[in-house]
This record gives sequence, C-alpha cells and structure tokens, in this order.
Amino acid sequence: MFSKILIANRGEIAVRIIRACREMGISTVAIYSEADKNAMHVQLADESYCVGGSRVADSYLNMPAILTVAIESGAQAIHPGYGLLSENAKFVSLCEQCNINFIGPTSEMIKLLGDKDNARKTMRAAGVPVTPGCDIIEDPVKAREEAEKIGFPLLIKARSGGGGKGIRRVDCIEQFDEAFAAASSEAQSAFGDGACYMEKFIHPVKHIEMQLLSDKYGNTICLGERECSVQRKNQKMIEESPSPALDDRTRKEMMKAAVKAAKAVNYVNAGTVEFLLDMDNNFYFMEMNTRLQVEHGVTEMVTGLDIVQWQIRIAAGGKLTRTQDSIFTHGNVIECRINAEDPEHGFRPSCGRIKRLHIPGGSFVRFDTAVFQDYFIPPYYDSMIGKLIVQARSRELAIRKMKMALSELTIDGIDINRDLLAEILSDEQFVSGEYTTDFMLDFEKKHKDGKK
Amino acid sequence: MFSKILIANRGEIAVRIIRACREMGISTVAIYSEADKNAMHVQLADESYCVGGSRVADSYLNMPAILTVAIESGAQAIHPGYGLLSENAKFVSLCEQCNINFIGPTSEMIKLLGDKDNARKTMRAAGVPVTPGCDIIEDPVKAREEAEKIGFPLLIKARSGGGGKGIRRVDCIEQFDEAFAAASSEAQSAFGDGACYMEKFIHPVKHIEMQLLSDKYGNTICLGERECSVQRKNQKMIEESPSPALDDRTRKEMMKAAVKAAKAVNYVNAGTVEFLLDMDNNFYFMEMNTRLQVEHGVTEMVTGLDIVQWQIRIAAGGKLTRTQDSIFTHGNVIECRINAEDPEHGFRPSCGRIKRLHIPGGSFVRFDTAVFQDYFIPPYYDSMIGKLIVQARSRELAIRKMKMALSELTIDGIDINRDLLAEILSDEQFVSGEYTTDFMLDFEKKHKDGKK
Repeated sequence: MFSKILIANRGEIAVRIIRACREMGISTVAIYSEADKNAMHVQLADESYCVGGSRVADSYLNMPAILTVAIESGAQAIHPGYGLLSENAKFVSLCEQCNINFIGPTSEMIKLLGDKDNARKTMRAAGVPVTPGCDIIEDPVKAREEAEKIGFPLLIKARSGGGGKGIRRVDCIEQFDEAFAAASSEAQSAFGDGACYMEKFIHPVKHIEMQLLSDKYGNTICLGERECSVQRKNQKMIEESPSPALDDRTRKEMMKAAVKAAKAVNYVNAGTVEFLLDMDNNFYFMEMNTRLQVEHGVTEMVTGLDIVQWQIRIAAGGKLTRTQDSIFTHGNVIECRINAEDPEHGFRPSCGRIKRLHIPGGSFVRFDTAVFQDYFIPPYYDSMIGKLIVQARSRELAIRKMKMALSELTIDGIDINRDLLAEILSDEQFVSGEYTTDFMLDFEKKHKDGKK
Repeated sequence: MFSKILIANRGEIAVRIIRACREMGISTVAIYSEADKNAMHVQLADESYCVGGSRVADSYLNMPAILTVAIESGAQAIHPGYGLLSENAKFVSLCEQCNINFIGPTSEMIKLLGDKDNARKTMRAAGVPVTPGCDIIEDPVKAREEAEKIGFPLLIKARSGGGGKGIRRVDCIEQFDEAFAAASSEAQSAFGDGACYMEKFIHPVKHIEMQLLSDKYGNTICLGERECSVQRKNQKMIEESPSPALDDRTRKEMMKAAVKAAKAVNYVNAGTVEFLLDMDNNFYFMEMNTRLQVEHGVTEMVTGLDIVQWQIRIAAGGKLTRTQDSIFTHGNVIECRINAEDPEHGFRPSCGRIKRLHIPGGSFVRFDTAVFQDYFIPPYYDSMIGKLIVQARSRELAIRKMKMALSELTIDGIDINRDLLAEILSDEQFVSGEYTTDFMLDFEKKHKDGKK
C-alpha cells in the first residue's frame, strides 16, 4: 500500500480524498494555488505546497510543478480527483514516466475512451448497445444515403469534435446536404479534421450512468446506477439512485452492458459508463468517464462502499474483495449540488466571505464541502461548493428529507442555488420520477411563464 | 399524525427531534431557558418560548410553564428527549391530564419500571433472567441464610434506593450481619424505608443494552444491541454495535429476552433493556429505560431505521410496519461522546465561546450537535456537546475511521475530551473488544502509572 499520496485537486473533492487517505493510514500531500493558501484541503493535509498563481492554468493544471512536488515530497501516487487533470492523458503519461502511480486508468485507456468515435466502435464490437448511426463517412452522397437509413432527426458529429463544435442536428432529408457540408467545414476549420459520423437523435432521453470498479486482475463489479437527468447546460444539478425509471430487467441489462464495456477495454480503477435511456427502455452507450465522478457519494451511500478507498487500493495493486453478489442497495439516495451562484440573475457565480454557515446534519445526511465560516470563496474556481446527500427508505421520503436538509442549510454572505433546488424537488414532474434531460428547460420555461 | 410537537429539551437532542419533525412535516415548538435564547434548537424550531431562568430546575424542569406553552401553542404532543422530564412519571401524568400526547410510554409504565425491585419481580415472573438473589427480606437471620445460598460477593440493595445510597457490597459471610444492618439503617434514614433485597455481585461484567420499538397493537421489534461498557462513574463514553462480545446465539437469546421484557409490561414506544453480561455469556436484566437513549444514533446507523420518527409515529397511534425479519445490521458503528470538559484536570466542565469549529464529515460519519462557531457554551447544563458516530465494514475499520474523524474535529475556545477518546480507541484492551465495565478504571490507572 502507498504510504504517501499527493492530491492534485482542491475543494470538497480534495478534502474527500484526504479523509480516505487518513482512514487508510496514508500521509497526504496537498497542492494549492496562491488564492487557496487558507483552504480546507491545505489545513487538513499533512504537507502542502503552493504550485502557482490563482488561475487554474497556473496551478492546478501546472503539470511540471505538480510532478516536482510529488517527486520531492516522496509521494508514490497522485489522486487527481475529478475535472482538472483527471482525464488528461498527457499528465497520466508523465506520471507513468516519473514512476508515480496515477490513481485511475492508464494513459492509453484514457486516450482510447476519450476519442468518442473510437470508443463507440470498441463498444459496438464488444456488443454494448450504441446509438444507431454510421461511422466516419466522407462522401456526401453516400452520407445522404446512410442518413435516410438512420432516419430523422439525426446528429452529424465531428470525429475530433468537442465543446459542441462540429455538431449539427438534422430534422429532415431536405436539410441534410447543407448540414453535412457545414459540419464538415466547421470541423475542418476548428480541428483540422473534417471527418464526421452520424447518430440517430434520440429524444426525449434520460441520462443514466453506471458506476464500476475494476481491479488489475480482470475483476469488475457494477455498483448500480445514478440517474442524472436533471441538468442545466450539461451541468448536473441533482442525482439519485436508484433511478425511478429503471425496472429490474432494464437495470440488470444496463449493468451487464456496463461491465461488458469495462471488460472490452480491460478497464482498471473506478469508471462510469454513461447511457441514454429512451422512452421504450432502450439504452445506448454514450461515453465512459475514466475518473471519479462528482456524484460518487450517491453510490457510496446507497451501497455502503467507499469508492475513493477502493480507487486507492486498486491503484496499489489490491484485489476487489467484493463480488457482484455482495452488492446491495439500501433505500433511496438523492444528491443536490450546492453552487455559489445566483439563479435569479442568470446563474452568475458568487464569491466572497461566508459570514455564517449552518450545515444540516443528523441521520442519513451527508454534506461534502470544503467551505467553513469566515472562508472567502475565490473567483477563480468552479462554483460548486458542496454536495448535500440524503438517504431514506423510499424516494418520497428521500425527497422530503432533502427538502428538510435544504431548508436547514444556511450560507450567509454569498448567493447559493438552495431555493431553486428546493423548488425542483417540489416540481410535480420531478416528484413523479418521469423526467428526462428536458426537465430543466421545461422547468425554467414554466417558471418564467409563471412570473409573467 | 400530529401537526405540532413541543420539544421539552435542549441541545443536540432537541435539534435531532426538530429534524425528525421537519422531515415528517410536523411543526415544532421549542422551549428555552434564559441562557439558551441563541441556542441552535431555538433557531431551528418554528416557534420558541422562554420557560424560565437559566438553571434546569427553573426552565427545562418547569412543568407548569412547559405545559402552558404546549397548550397555548396548540402542540398535540411533547417529545421529552432524554434526561430532564423524560422518565418523570408525574410530568407524564400531567400531560395525560392535559390531553397532550407524551411521546413515550404511559406514566404507569414509567412508575412500574422505575421501581427496581418491582421491575425485577415482573421480569423474573415473565421468564427474563434477572441477577440471582432474593426479594425483600426483613429478618436478619433469614437474610443471612439467604445470603449463604446466593454466595459471595453479593450486593444488599434498598428497595427504595437510588443515587448509590443503601447499597452494600459483601465479600464474605463474616461481613454480612454488619453490612445488612448498615444498609437497612441507611435506607431507613434516607428513604424512610429500610427494606432491602439482595443480588449476587457479578463481576467482571459487560454492559449491553437492547433497543426496542413497540407499538400500541402489541407489536415489538428489537433493533439489536449496543455495547456500553466504556463508562466512567456510570457515564457512558463510547458505545458500539454490534458488541464484540456477543456470539450469535447469545445475541438471539438476549434479543428474545428483551422482547419478552417489553411484552411482560405491554410496553409502548422506544425502550431499552439494559443487561449485564458475565464472562460465561450469562446475562441478567438490569433495568429498562423508558425513553430515547443518548446513544440511539448508533442503532439508527447500524440498522438504517430512524428511531425518533418511529417514536412519533407510534405515539400518534401508528403501527410498526417493520417486522423482526426485516431488521438487519450493516457493518460496525461506534459512537464517541464529545464532552466540554478537561480530562487532564479531573474532568472539570468547560464553558465559554467556541472560537473555531471544524466538524469531521464525509462518508459514513455523523456528528449530532447543537454547537456552532461563536456559540457560547453556558455553564448550566450537561457537558456533552456532541456525538460523533461512524460506520465501517468491520470493527477494526470503524475504529480507524473514528480516529480519523476525531483527529479532524476541532473545537477551539473550550476544553474537550477528544484526545482521551483517541487514546482509548488505541488501547490494546479496547481494540481486542474484550473490555468490561472495569475498563476505564484500569485505563486511568495504567495512564497514571505511566506518567509517574
């Protein structure tokens, strides 16, 4: 087992990882930016080193500085948390070169799964259902023929795409030629690669992901799903497990598909397979995230496993001692992401000093955070400042419990999205469990109309 | 169901009950003393009323004031928490007269189980094992004969005893006559009743209690045990579940005996049967507590049930929907009581302003408290200011997790017993699980000797 781990992250996830290390008797090395010198993760770690200026690019993405700290402090491993360098193949490759264990999969695996066209092909070959469509096609005439086979609406996506560029939605054959040309040329100019593939546009859908753990010996277990359809501009806001949409049969099939996906690439460490689920219970592989997810705590609470500790054990060469048969879920778990932002004014980020802090507690309530009373939230980082997670015996009771917990949460001095979350929890459609990724659009429209 | 409940308590347990009520959609009425006007329970309740001066006798024990608030605020029920009025038959009887639901058993039940000789007889008649001994005996000659039958050492106890008065330990027959006379006369002068009974003095013992829930329809379930042998001057310091001392057979028998005890008296609401367990796995009924215990959270965490919510449902006439078969325990749970006191100076209570507060959190960690940063701990009340509870997959891991959590707990401005608790958790005997109620005496002796 490692005796010292560097945590290449900040905020609540750095604190989360430090706690896991402490519990395992592992020393911790924190890194921090100039703005973070009083941050909680710096206070809790055994050693802390400043790696650069306040902006993320200067510090938390400063690979040479981070690796230097790792080497000089004698850390045998780096936990990247989520975001930042967690899925950066170049960083992982540098760790490998420096003989430092990266707590996550290999750089090769990250590259393979980060290329969406590649991942799609690999999964299809392994028998994991992927969205119907066709692979890279260059000839516009052939593309048009394929498009008719796929049916409309469909999406044209650039192979090298990202950030929403090189994507076109096509609703009928008449729009096709123009859209295909536009996507190709946009992709060509943005990525130097005009190649595109096509996917059926499935809508409405739910976004459901499966949590996996895989060790280095070919053992993979699936810890069940998280329902993540409550999103705003691709940012998840509320997650829950079990998903109210899954019947036992679909859940089992989806879990099998997720395990198949991991096995197809000999995946190692914690990973998440994201699926789209349509209204007829068909599901499609969307992507595989090769890192700890923000919402991992939902699965921890519903299964009783500690995912971060398992990540560390697996990276150190440990074997999974839990088998699929021994994984059970208990009741219903809901998570709300608490953001320092003002939903009343376009969700503009809020920063400043926390004058008064009251964290809800009690039975089956967890609040993961790195803020404290008198803490100054700096303007440089993600607006998520906490994750409130509750567990109860039923979904109805979990919703009630979350409302109670939210009503107790007090963070004076900054704006937070607490009241918006409470309104969502009271929304008829959310309560019914029959919500899709359209939920937030509909919700915001409804509330705007209501205010007129 | 009730729509409004008055909480006749303060501190962490008042907060705990308010949270349960909120979750159930029940309005809450807090009462408070002059010293508590800024207390957390006052801030969290829907309504709050001052019921008197800072001293407990003037406020939290002020029955007329409390009942007046209940009636005037329209509360249909009173939750007494633990301590204070929770086992006061007179108060319960007043509630009954005022037509206010007392969340707990009837006044009659409290009286019956509060009389130790009576409880002992009732339990023996019901087939619950009680400590070997004999009932009230007046004639010293006959008493001496009985004493020889019981064997030495034994305890002579006054029927009306309490607070340690009228108790004598007798180690051999030669000491008997004098001890019996002394106990009788002490009891006579202290309680106006010289009658005594005798019990075998069992030693060494473990203190293990069983948590029960009984509804008004004759259904009783047992939520398993709590091991409470780490005590100092009869004050519990650390509790855990499951007990490392119980094998499955003994546990089952003890659970059966606890259910038998509750059924013998038609017990209603949450209750706890305390047993002594000797080194040969024999156990003996000690007493039945007719209230929520301080350490109820241990059972909540290990079983997943919410005991306070069940208390409220039962008091409102609800039926137990859980059966014994549906009760499982998950892993190991340990609780440490965090006291504002200075173990280095005779455990003298500490009061004052909390300048900085950092509460440990994360996965499977619960901290029940009513203190907050800038809170002033008044000198009038119990020194317990928090209960730190952790859960893990094994006892070893739970101990590690508790050490991690304790090391993170920061309460600046007052003295707390944190370091003592951490030392206990590292003690070889505690770690072995083979500790008895002698543990703290031995521990303190060891550490005193160590310091010489």
